Amino acid sequence: MNGIGALIFDVFGTLVDWRTAIAREARQHLSPLAIDVDWHAFADAWRDQYQPAMEEVRSGRLPFSKLDRLHRRNLDVVLADLGLDQVDEATRTALNLAWHRLDAWPDVAPGLLELRTSFRLAPCSNGNISLMVDLARHNGLPWDAILGAELARDYKPKAIVYLVAADAFDLAPTETMMVAAHSPDLAAAAAAGLRTAFVARPHEFGPNTGETSASVPVDLSAADLLDLARLLQE
Amino acid sequence: MNGIGALIFDVFGTLVDWRTAIAREARQHLSPLAIDVDWHAFADAWRDQYQPAMEEVRSGRLPFSKLDRLHRRNLDVVLADLGLDQVDEATRTALNLAWHRLDAWPDVAPGLLELRTSFRLAPCSNGNISLMVDLARHNGLPWDAILGAELARDYKPKAIVYLVAADAFDLAPTETMMVAAHSPDLAAAAAAGLRTAFVARPHEFGPNTGETSASVPVDLSAADLLDLARLLQE
Repeated sequence: MNGIGALIFDVFGTLVDWRTAIAREARQHLSPLAIDVDWHAFADAWRDQYQPAMEEVRSGRLPFSKLDRLHRRNLDVVLADLGLDQVDEATRTALNLAWHRLDAWPDVAPGLLELRTSFRLAPCSNGNISLMVDLARHNGLPWDAILGAELARDYKPKAIVYLVAADAFDLAPTETMMVAAHSPDLAAAAAAGLRTAFVARPHEFGPNTGETSASVPVDLSAADLLDLARLLQE
Repeated sequence: MNGIGALIFDVFGTLVDWRTAIAREARQHLSPLAIDVDWHAFADAWRDQYQPAMEEVRSGRLPFSKLDRLHRRNLDVVLADLGLDQVDEATRTALNLAWHRLDAWPDVAPGLLELRTSFRLAPCSNGNISLMVDLARHNGLPWDAILGAELARDYKPKAIVYLVAADAFDLAPTETMMVAAHSPDLAAAAAAGLRTAFVARPHEFGPNTGETSASVPVDLSAADLLDLARLLQE
């Protein structure tokens, strides 16, 4: 792993547990309105709208807009599908910001602090800059910069998002390593010329639902970020 | 000063002393080649090429390119003007990176740490992202994000650079304060709708050469960043 200058990270699922916090906040914001649903199923339904919404931008059918805006559009879809049209504007706005308050997996902050001594670090997420800033403050993530979709003005897995991130650090793709818990993200980064590291998040979508190993070739495979730091020091 | 969510900062001159380090590094890199000039005058000559080079981009005559590239073009101009064509490529490349190694004024790191408890913080500089990342690491600057020219793909004082920075934090221009030691920067930010704070850097271009007070209307005027933190708490 010689010659790597920066690590860039997927965030939703790889660094933060979106499902637990979204289910919790949905209950907090909606149960006072006498709404009672399966809150984890609600979180999953919201997340299910994620790729289709971004595909509208990736395909060029919609101009680039921040993920916060897509999340809000997706929330309206989910509420309509559940017949919950009574949810008022203020509640929708507040609930949409739940994505800014997700908790990191326990190894993430200490792992990044260790990795930071040897590498430049940035998120390379589809989340917008303010969302990444809030997650960093909430979880103590020591980023050098916020890279990703808002800088590239397109969404992963389009190659430009990875390439713009590497270029922002003045690095060639081969000097940049993409870290993610999802094989499609890593496959796209590798196709763009980056090195790749898989991190296992086996409980991302609920107990024993996430990928335990990459289904595509990767340069490194780690149990968590502390393990990744060890592997990169070998 | 109610309703301000973020402070964005000019960097060259306002946060870092470019002239001392550029003069020192020019001497370090060029004197081994038997070159002897007035090193502070060399720094000033290099900096004199700064606005004309950016104007090529602002006017649309050149496509956006990172400041590192403009700095390198400007270095070649200065060396040619001085008849120093013998300076080799490796020396030019190394000297050009001197802009990544500038020292901050002494109040900057403690001032930003204090301001960070109440506001989101980012550079809004014409310097590129990697340059800002290196200055942050070198000087311990606790940025939330790196905003500025590379995100906006244009150069200050064009309004879009300030507006893109505010928008990245999900803030209206009036909720965002531009901090700078230069009246033209603050005048442009105010014209774009931002609040403004002047910080005095009286020795930027050598002893008693910088602005001691703003020549345009500003919302706040401070002696340094610690003073600014006090003023914003009032």
